[in-house]
Amino acid sequence: MEQKLGQLKTILAEIADLSGAAALLGWDQQTYMPPGGAEARGNQLGTLQRLAHERQTSPELGKLLEDLKPLTATLDPDSDEARLVKVGARDYEKATRVPSEWVVEFAQVTTMAQQAWMDARSKSDFSIFLPHLEKIVGLAHRYVSFFPQADHPYDILLDNFEPRMKTADVKVIFDALRPKQVELIKAIAQQPQVDDAFLHQDFDDKKQWDFGVGVITKFGYDWNCGRQDKAAHPFTTGFSNRDVRITTRVAPNFLNSMLFGTMHECGHALYGLGSPDALERTTLDGGASLAVHESQSRMWENLVGRSLPFWEHFYPRLQETFPSQLSNVPLDKFYKGINKVQPSLIRVEADEATYNLHIMLRLEIEIALMEGKLAVKNLPEVWNAKMQEYLGVTPPNDARGVLQDIHWSGGIIGYFSTYALGNLVSAQLWEKINEDIPNLSAQIREGKFDTLLGWLREKIHRHGRKFEPQELVQKVTGSKIDAAPYLRYLSQKFGQIYGL
Amino acid sequence: MEQKLGQLKTILAEIADLSGAAALLGWDQQTYMPPGGAEARGNQLGTLQRLAHERQTSPELGKLLEDLKPLTATLDPDSDEARLVKVGARDYEKATRVPSEWVVEFAQVTTMAQQAWMDARSKSDFSIFLPHLEKIVGLAHRYVSFFPQADHPYDILLDNFEPRMKTADVKVIFDALRPKQVELIKAIAQQPQVDDAFLHQDFDDKKQWDFGVGVITKFGYDWNCGRQDKAAHPFTTGFSNRDVRITTRVAPNFLNSMLFGTMHECGHALYGLGSPDALERTTLDGGASLAVHESQSRMWENLVGRSLPFWEHFYPRLQETFPSQLSNVPLDKFYKGINKVQPSLIRVEADEATYNLHIMLRLEIEIALMEGKLAVKNLPEVWNAKMQEYLGVTPPNDARGVLQDIHWSGGIIGYFSTYALGNLVSAQLWEKINEDIPNLSAQIREGKFDTLLGWLREKIHRHGRKFEPQELVQKVTGSKIDAAPYLRYLSQKFGQIYGL
Repeated sequence: MEQKLGQLKTILAEIADLSGAAALLGWDQQTYMPPGGAEARGNQLGTLQRLAHERQTSPELGKLLEDLKPLTATLDPDSDEARLVKVGARDYEKATRVPSEWVVEFAQVTTMAQQAWMDARSKSDFSIFLPHLEKIVGLAHRYVSFFPQADHPYDILLDNFEPRMKTADVKVIFDALRPKQVELIKAIAQQPQVDDAFLHQDFDDKKQWDFGVGVITKFGYDWNCGRQDKAAHPFTTGFSNRDVRITTRVAPNFLNSMLFGTMHECGHALYGLGSPDALERTTLDGGASLAVHESQSRMWENLVGRSLPFWEHFYPRLQETFPSQLSNVPLDKFYKGINKVQPSLIRVEADEATYNLHIMLRLEIEIALMEGKLAVKNLPEVWNAKMQEYLGVTPPNDARGVLQDIHWSGGIIGYFSTYALGNLVSAQLWEKINEDIPNLSAQIREGKFDTLLGWLREKIHRHGRKFEPQELVQKVTGSKIDAAPYLRYLSQKFGQIYGL
Repeated sequence: MEQKLGQLKTILAEIADLSGAAALLGWDQQTYMPPGGAEARGNQLGTLQRLAHERQTSPELGKLLEDLKPLTATLDPDSDEARLVKVGARDYEKATRVPSEWVVEFAQVTTMAQQAWMDARSKSDFSIFLPHLEKIVGLAHRYVSFFPQADHPYDILLDNFEPRMKTADVKVIFDALRPKQVELIKAIAQQPQVDDAFLHQDFDDKKQWDFGVGVITKFGYDWNCGRQDKAAHPFTTGFSNRDVRITTRVAPNFLNSMLFGTMHECGHALYGLGSPDALERTTLDGGASLAVHESQSRMWENLVGRSLPFWEHFYPRLQETFPSQLSNVPLDKFYKGINKVQPSLIRVEADEATYNLHIMLRLEIEIALMEGKLAVKNLPEVWNAKMQEYLGVTPPNDARGVLQDIHWSGGIIGYFSTYALGNLVSAQLWEKINEDIPNLSAQIREGKFDTLLGWLREKIHRHGRKFEPQELVQKVTGSKIDAAPYLRYLSQKFGQIYGL
């Protein structure tokens, strides 16, 4: 068994190296690559991904996994080795269904599409992006066709981000969530508007940046093992558990963009940096799923970063950083301002009460695309109509509408619902954390985050990708993904802020 | 033949993609990678280089080249196809001698060594770098042992950078050069010192940067196909002919570092950007050799960038940029200052008259290391002694002595002489260019560089790596690499400046 496990790890290490290299090419593409580099980058990514895919689907790997299955059956089923074989076999089964040609084409198409998206977004012109997105949706349909046994075509895409989660399950959870969130938003709309004009002032770029850096340094982000750069659409990416990088964007006239974006990405990065050495260069490094990943980013962004105790600590520093803008704004007003509930255009800047509606819109569009009920060229129209229907706002242009998210340009369909699921998981974990660390609020009020980070490392991060998301959430909180804690959190927080 | 050429190009494209990806990993390592990333980066580079090497040495490639040799014999021997097979066969023959294990170990060792070198350099402590450099020299000895038929062990290393050049040939050229350069330096030393104190003032970092950017934009560097970043040791690297990036460093108290460094790297980049589309993703993209590459960088840095016509155009702009530092310095004084001849410590900041002596020192050390006549631990001592002997100066610490260059940390031995050869070639080309473009000086005086760049593209850049360096120099200038034009250039230029 040892020998075969060694052989397995050698193959997985090679795949991990190819994926790590590809991730760096992707990072560069979104941060520093000059536009001329796009075509060659597409070729390079195509080759790396094809080589990784060849290894992920090699008969040699299949044979090893097959041989190891009975051998590891005697081990603790939660041991690294048993999970390595279990998760490996699952990945292998999925990967062998997808032909290499598809993988190469996907890499090439998405590389060009990302450049086109950036261009389209900067010019607010969907037509520049349209032919690329049509190719991507076509590729998604072909991908789904490789898995003919699915209950629903969208299940196949969802499973890539949220292992074993079904479209039907997500619908059930969202159906529990939607009416309560809509009810809350309506109740808030009847209250006097919160004033957040002070957030929309001129804030020096560098001072914003430095403040964000100060916050995440306190969170425990290790700059020896990461860095922050600017990107049009902030993201986190890692090349090992000692090099996990974040990106952010800084809006000159709006503080939230950098502030909460930076904390959000830091939450992702802390998860990646907490992946254990023992799982490095295997398929088990990284995170359980995107929802679990998002639970980490949303926790640091919202449950920590938009909480009153957090600002009791950080607000005096922020006032010192921006005295002319904030010295006359008391803490209570600031706290209400950053938590203002207002239906708006941009998902990543949406408040906690409306955020999930942005997700539901995207989920419905993606499902319709995959059911063949919606043509890509009609996306801007459908987007704008749904924005009006759900949030009562209509984007003034496509840049602030259908072109706002990078995901589709990267070929990523099936991802969005994990954002809402992540919100739910963050609140589930938060209730458990507050049981285990009764003085957490006091710690946060003192700017101390090490106990919190330690808890997350112990309960979540150190497991890497060993457990499926529902399994992990159950293990840690005692129940599967559930909308109730998030709804409790929302109604308590916004009940207090809006005096409901 | 067409079919086999197609198969050949498919393999070469895959190798090019792997090499391009590896080059990006290398670029990141020297610009943005956090220190924690080093170990994983070593693994990733090791894997990419091993995969590239497996392809470069695959029996399939060998067979294709073998089959194509007689088929392409009927073609024009200078055609892309004939050269592709010729150069490919040569590369294949060399690559098949080197075992994959060596390639992997080399990647791992040099990744760690580069981190150690940065650390050692910043602390000026050779002992930090010593064990890494010992490993690298050991690897070089093992590499040479794979080519037992060599006249001299150093030939094997030199050939990697300067195809078909022999250690003995370089010695002959350098022997012709050394006494004349020493004589010139002595004659200059007897003249009154040139005053360049004005170059050692406080120059704002960003203004320096922007000025350099302005200059190379005029040279024709296309920012859609490149970018400039900071690096401890400036370098140029490319991932295609539409993404060639440069790096520079900015010294707050010395203008030359950024100024001539930026022009130098731009010269390399223009060569890479001039590589033709037809040769992309083959072994023939890029440049003929490092000496030819260096002829380009040194031409833009020195023959253009340190010339009087150049500064007749740019000096008023530089004075506007730094009025308090330069408004009282007349052009003539500035021109003499930037061309001041003074034996000094740092190779990349050396003047044109002493530069080659820095190279001769390094060449002798490398030859001694490869002949087994010098132990790595004695390097600082030997370095300092030779600096005193050749240039009459002794480094105050290792950072400004033996640790100044990045090359050895990257496993690069055999490279340095190409810098001096590049100087020679730049002057050989320059004589030819001035015959072909009689009003070149006037164009430069007007800040116009397109005719010059066009000439270089036509005569040098568009050939990529099709010709060996001696072959290309012969083709363009009518003779092989020759010290005479550079000596003529030096004695004319410095004769005028120093009134000899």
